[in-house]
Amino acid sequence: MIAAPGRRLPVALDAMGGDDAPQAIVQGALEAVRHGENVILIGDERRLRQLLPSRGPTPQIAHADEVVSMDQGAASVRRMPDSSIRRTMALVGAGEACAAVCCGHTGASMVSARLELGSLDGVERAAIATLLPRSDGGRLVLLDAGANVDCRPEHLACFALLGAAYASVLGVDAPRVGLLSNGEEEGKGNGQVRTALPLIKALDLDVVGPVEPHTALAGGCDVLVCDGFVGNVLLKSAEAVIATALQILREEIKGRPSGVAGSWMLRSTMQRFHERLAWDAHGGALLLGTRGVVVVGHGRANPEAVCSAIALAREAVDRGLVQEVAARLAGSGA
Amino acid sequence: MIAAPGRRLPVALDAMGGDDAPQAIVQGALEAVRHGENVILIGDERRLRQLLPSRGPTPQIAHADEVVSMDQGAASVRRMPDSSIRRTMALVGAGEACAAVCCGHTGASMVSARLELGSLDGVERAAIATLLPRSDGGRLVLLDAGANVDCRPEHLACFALLGAAYASVLGVDAPRVGLLSNGEEEGKGNGQVRTALPLIKALDLDVVGPVEPHTALAGGCDVLVCDGFVGNVLLKSAEAVIATALQILREEIKGRPSGVAGSWMLRSTMQRFHERLAWDAHGGALLLGTRGVVVVGHGRANPEAVCSAIALAREAVDRGLVQEVAARLAGSGA
Repeated sequence: MIAAPGRRLPVALDAMGGDDAPQAIVQGALEAVRHGENVILIGDERRLRQLLPSRGPTPQIAHADEVVSMDQGAASVRRMPDSSIRRTMALVGAGEACAAVCCGHTGASMVSARLELGSLDGVERAAIATLLPRSDGGRLVLLDAGANVDCRPEHLACFALLGAAYASVLGVDAPRVGLLSNGEEEGKGNGQVRTALPLIKALDLDVVGPVEPHTALAGGCDVLVCDGFVGNVLLKSAEAVIATALQILREEIKGRPSGVAGSWMLRSTMQRFHERLAWDAHGGALLLGTRGVVVVGHGRANPEAVCSAIALAREAVDRGLVQEVAARLAGSGA
Repeated sequence: MIAAPGRRLPVALDAMGGDDAPQAIVQGALEAVRHGENVILIGDERRLRQLLPSRGPTPQIAHADEVVSMDQGAASVRRMPDSSIRRTMALVGAGEACAAVCCGHTGASMVSARLELGSLDGVERAAIATLLPRSDGGRLVLLDAGANVDCRPEHLACFALLGAAYASVLGVDAPRVGLLSNGEEEGKGNGQVRTALPLIKALDLDVVGPVEPHTALAGGCDVLVCDGFVGNVLLKSAEAVIATALQILREEIKGRPSGVAGSWMLRSTMQRFHERLAWDAHGGALLLGTRGVVVVGHGRANPEAVCSAIALAREAVDRGLVQEVAARLAGSGA
């Protein structure tokens, strides 16, 4: 497949991954195409064609025979070169797409990326980076958000480089890197953190040291490095708390007498509250360290989230994320 | 010292530990005494006397020469038998107080508890248990919340027993125990979790398996077991998110035109929101596995939090927490 002349390379989108696939994925792709994006859907061609409208701009389609289901182990994708997830990555590897977006099996996405794209020099483990809103208005790059559940200290050091490269691409001049810990005094942290800290400090980075969550979320650093198990628990706990907060607000608003002047005000406050607390993980996270832009979408992605994930992928391509990451790694002698 | 006849044994309160000690601690003790509680303050007697009013009921005082400061290592308390924290625990060990409350150095509190009280049979590591509000209205016992940053799988199994005993004492009939993980499918989790799961399942407990934070906070289990580093990060992240949520609500309310009918409504909604989201860690957490009731208060404890910590200690004594924990451990053959 050759990109149409004069058009940017398409974003490859695995149409078969995600709780509401392929419907939600196709809807998201259509939305993106309507906004001028170039998308190629990978999956069961016949099924996908049925979901596309007969008129108006539509995404391209590339057929894939197989689908990796959520109850399969990540390694099973090794024996499934014709799966939609492998084909999605392969299009990027072959230079036929500029980026891959997958909302399905995270583990299978990572294995597929490694198989079809390979890792950048110096990267033993790719990491998932998520952007979190800080209370000072900035954004925090959190990684690893769940790609690696048993990290060695040297993996954390590599994550520091990957995260700093991402923050640079986002426009942060000299990203401040923090290592997530249970206290900010030297000597705090578990064995993993205490061993990783000197490795990270030895890198050519602005390292603020061990940081606690509230410091990081208040703006104390631009990059927060942690083990993938810990990062995943952190993210999911925060999501659960935010969901509870929204539920409580909703209940409080419902319990009020309706029709009064304040009712509208409560509703609009609620709306703004929701927007400002929204964690960007909703729109997907970046897999850093591979030879290509890969966005891991949320399994519960709705069309809007799919659209955001595509936009995130495009932004990473336009800003030269992979090149920046490679340069950082080379500069560190990793 | 002998307890006054006809009065319950006092709660021993380390007056010198905490960011605003001794002032905030003394104020909290006074508040508790006014509510009929029996408290003994441990610390610099002359300084404490100056902080007490000349009339009305006041706490007792037991003098202690030394203070463990926050920048000292936890082990330094071994060489400080006359420190307020050691003396506080020693009063419980000697049967002169029914429980100990410390808002200072958590590590030093744990070491002091081990030295002066000892661990229950079968407990290699005591754990800090915190109560979290679930969205179904119930309470979740989370442990370890930060006592042990490098747990072995068998420690997690012991925490399951400790947490189940605590939940029983809180009135939960057959506590459902979950193991915190990054996914609920079998095979998910890091090495620690995957090794601990069969050990926990082998205990005489109702084990729901690996659980994610949102499941636990929605009511999927009564006890959530995790490594202390992970538990501490979870708690602190949630606290940071809640603080951000409250800040956003406050800002949204401030930005509204004042004097309108809805203004009061927003304020009262905010108040209720705050109350319902409040995590009980504010009032202290229980150190489980020692031969005596020990409450670890928040370092930033204000008088109200000190008062809550004293109430938590008294409740644990009245409900026979240590006896229940010991019985659970004996029943499991630990």
